[in-house]
Amino acid sequence: MARSIITLTTDFGVADPYLGIMKGVILSIHPDVDLVDITHDIRACDVMEASYQLSQAYRYFPPRTIHLVVVDPGVGTDRRPIIASEDKYFFVAPDNGVLSMVFSREENITVRHITSEHYFLEPVSQLFHGRDVFAPIAAWLARGVESAKFGEIITDYVRYQLPVPKRVNEHLQKGIVVRVDRFGSLMTNLTPHDVPEIFGGAPRPFKIVIGQTEITELRQVYAEGEKDEVFAILGSSGYIEIAVNRGSASKALGVGKGTEIGFVLA
Amino acid sequence: MARSIITLTTDFGVADPYLGIMKGVILSIHPDVDLVDITHDIRACDVMEASYQLSQAYRYFPPRTIHLVVVDPGVGTDRRPIIASEDKYFFVAPDNGVLSMVFSREENITVRHITSEHYFLEPVSQLFHGRDVFAPIAAWLARGVESAKFGEIITDYVRYQLPVPKRVNEHLQKGIVVRVDRFGSLMTNLTPHDVPEIFGGAPRPFKIVIGQTEITELRQVYAEGEKDEVFAILGSSGYIEIAVNRGSASKALGVGKGTEIGFVLA
Amino acid sequence: MARSIITLTTDFGVADPYLGIMKGVILSIHPDVDLVDITHDIRACDVMEASYQLSQAYRYFPPRTIHLVVVDPGVGTDRRPIIASEDKYFFVAPDNGVLSMVFSREENITVRHITSEHYFLEPVSQLFHGRDVFAPIAAWLARGVESAKFGEIITDYVRYQLPVPKRVNEHLQKGIVVRVDRFGSLMTNLTPHDVPEIFGGAPRPFKIVIGQTEITELRQVYAEGEKDEVFAILGSSGYIEIAVNRGSASKALGVGKGTEIGFVLA
Repeated sequence: MARSIITLTTDFGVADPYLGIMKGVILSIHPDVDLVDITHDIRACDVMEASYQLSQAYRYFPPRTIHLVVVDPGVGTDRRPIIASEDKYFFVAPDNGVLSMVFSREENITVRHITSEHYFLEPVSQLFHGRDVFAPIAAWLARGVESAKFGEIITDYVRYQLPVPKRVNEHLQKGIVVRVDRFGSLMTNLTPHDVPEIFGGAPRPFKIVIGQTEITELRQVYAEGEKDEVFAILGSSGYIEIAVNRGSASKALGVGKGTEIGFVLA
Repeated sequence: MARSIITLTTDFGVADPYLGIMKGVILSIHPDVDLVDITHDIRACDVMEASYQLSQAYRYFPPRTIHLVVVDPGVGTDRRPIIASEDKYFFVAPDNGVLSMVFSREENITVRHITSEHYFLEPVSQLFHGRDVFAPIAAWLARGVESAKFGEIITDYVRYQLPVPKRVNEHLQKGIVVRVDRFGSLMTNLTPHDVPEIFGGAPRPFKIVIGQTEITELRQVYAEGEKDEVFAILGSSGYIEIAVNRGSASKALGVGKGTEIGFVLA
Repeated sequence: MARSIITLTTDFGVADPYLGIMKGVILSIHPDVDLVDITHDIRACDVMEASYQLSQAYRYFPPRTIHLVVVDPGVGTDRRPIIASEDKYFFVAPDNGVLSMVFSREENITVRHITSEHYFLEPVSQLFHGRDVFAPIAAWLARGVESAKFGEIITDYVRYQLPVPKRVNEHLQKGIVVRVDRFGSLMTNLTPHDVPEIFGGAPRPFKIVIGQTEITELRQVYAEGEKDEVFAILGSSGYIEIAVNRGSASKALGVGKGTEIGFVLA
C-alpha cells in the first residue's frame, strides 16, 4: 500500500522550528506518511494568499492526499477548525476563508467542524493549533480514521468572495494581478474565457493597460519575448500572465499584487 | 516496521548544496529513513541559536528519532564529535555546546565521544564533518548500530550556562529575549513559574519594562490584542512572549534578541 | 526494495507552488519515491549556477538516483528535453547546458532526446515543462521504465565550455571565483593539481592576488584563521577556497562570483 501524503502550506517560514514541530507531531501519530511542502512563505496572516497558492497546487497530488493549511491569525478564538472533503482530497484548516478558492472550484465538498478533542495533542495551547489540533487531525485522517468521526457537517463555513474579472463593455475587460511570482511575472485572475476575442481563432487587435503602461504583444513562450519587452502570455495554470523574457515584469512596470489590468479590445 | 527518522538542524541555509550532500550520504548508507528539516537558517556559527531551536522541537518527534545538528565552527580542530542518548532520542553533534539546552532538560543522558573512524566517509575533509562524520554516524545509528559501538562515554562534554531568569526582589523579575520569530514575537526565557504573582489564581497588578516601553496587558490569545497593542502572552512552548496581534512586537518596540525584560510587580 | 530517490534542483524558489506541483506530479505517477531537494535558490535562468551546484552534490547519492534539474529559460522553444545516464545516475533536464559540469566529469555518459510524449502530463503547457515533461519522465524512470523507451541517443547535446584555470608561466597560475557560499567563502575553480608548488611536499613561497588584496596564508581548518584574517584553504569539494574564520571572505575583500584570482609563486 502506498504511503499517505500530507502537504503543508503555512505562514511559518523555515527559520523557526514550528514547521519541524508539526512534522514531528504527524510522524508520532502516523509514521507511514510522506510530507510535502507546498510553501511556508505565505505573508504572515495572509489567508487569501494561502488560498491562492494552495489552489494552484492541490490538484496535482494523488487521490486521498491530505492538504493541511495553517494560516491562522484567529487561533484560540471561536473560529472553528474544519475538515473539507471531496471526491479526491481532504483539506484540514482553520475556518477563516483560507479554503475559499478550493470551495470555488469544487462543487461537491463536505465541510465538518472538528470537535473530537480526544484526537488533539494535549494540553492544547491557544496559540499553536497547527501543532495541537491541525497536525494531529491530519495524521489521524492519514491513518484511516473516517472524517465523520471528527465532527458534524456544517454549511455556514467562511468563504470569501474572490475578485471577479469584470466585463465593462464590448471593448473593455478588467481584471487584477493576484500574485507576483519569483520570476517577477504578474499572475492575473483572467482566463482566455474572459477575452475570447484575443484567444479565439481570429484574434482582434487589443492593448492591455496596466499601471502607466500599454502592452500590445501576446507571446506563446517566454523565450519569444525580445529583450526587455513586456508581453501577455497564457500561463501554465490557465490564467493570463504579464511577463518579460529573462526579466521581471513587476520591476519593468513598477506594479505588483492588487494592480488593476484592463484589456482594451478594438 | 516504521522507517527511522533523522532530523537536521544546521547553519547551512538552502542555497548551497551542503544539505543535499548530507542527505545523499545518509540515504547511501541507510535508504529506509525519513529526513525532516528543523531549520537550516541558524545564523552562521551561532551554536546557542541552534541549541535553542532544537530544544523547541526535539520532543515532538517519535521515540528513537535521531536529531542531527551541524553548527560547527571548530570543524577540523580537536573539538570532539559526540552522540548523546537518553530514553527516547539520539543526538549527533559536535561537542561545542550546541546541545546545552538538551542537556539542561534531560537528566539521564549518556554522551559518547565518537572515535569509530571506520564509520566515517573517507577521505575525511577537515572542513565538512557534516558530510564525512556526522551524517554517516546518524545513518549507521538509524540502521541499528548501537551507540556504544561509536566510542567511549565522556562526562566532560561542553555545556554552556544558559541565561537564567533573575528574581531581583519581591517586586522585580528579570529575564531576556532569546529569540524573535518570523511574526516578530519576542520569545523570553521566563515561564509562569518565574512570575506566579501574575499567572496564579489572583493576579497582582504588574507592568513589563522592555526597551523604552512599559507593557501592562496580558492576553490569552493573539487575536484579543487591539490594533498595534503590545502585550504579554503565554507562548505555545511554555515561555512568556511579547507580541502584537497581526503585527511585529520587535518592530513596534525596536528591540530584539538579547534585550532585557523586567516584570515589575506592584 | 529501497524506494527510488529523485533529487530536485531548480530556480523556482520555495515561495511559489511550482516545486510542490512537481512533487505532486511525481508522487501521482510513482508514490514509492524519496524526494530530496538540492537547492531551489538558483538565480533565475542561471544555467551554469545550476550546473555547478548539481556537480557538487550528485555523487553523494546512492546508485540509481535520478537527478532532476529544471532551470529552463528556453521552455517551449525547440530546445530538447534530455535524459543523461551513466553507470550510477540518471539526469533529467533541458538540453541547455545545465548538465555541462556533469558531462565534464563523466566520461561514459549516454544522452537521449526525450520524445515519448505519451509519458508527458497532458495537456503540455509551453511554459512549465518542469511539471508536464521533466517531472513525469523522472517519475516513470523511477518506476523502472528503461531510458531507451524515452527517445533516441543524441551526441550533439549542449555542453558549455567551463572556465579553465590558466597556467600563465612558471610564476603565475590564474583561476576564477565560481561561487560565494552562505558563509561568504569564495569557491575557486583551482585544485591542488593546478598549484602543486604549494600543496606538494616542499611548498614554495606564494601570494594570492584577488581584487585589491594579497593573501599569503594557507590554512588547514577554518578555525586556525586569526580574527579577520583572509586565507586560502583546500575546500571539502577538492577546490581551493578563500575564507575567513567566522566571517565572510566575500565581504572582507569586496569581491564575488567571476572575480579573477592569481597564484603568484616565488
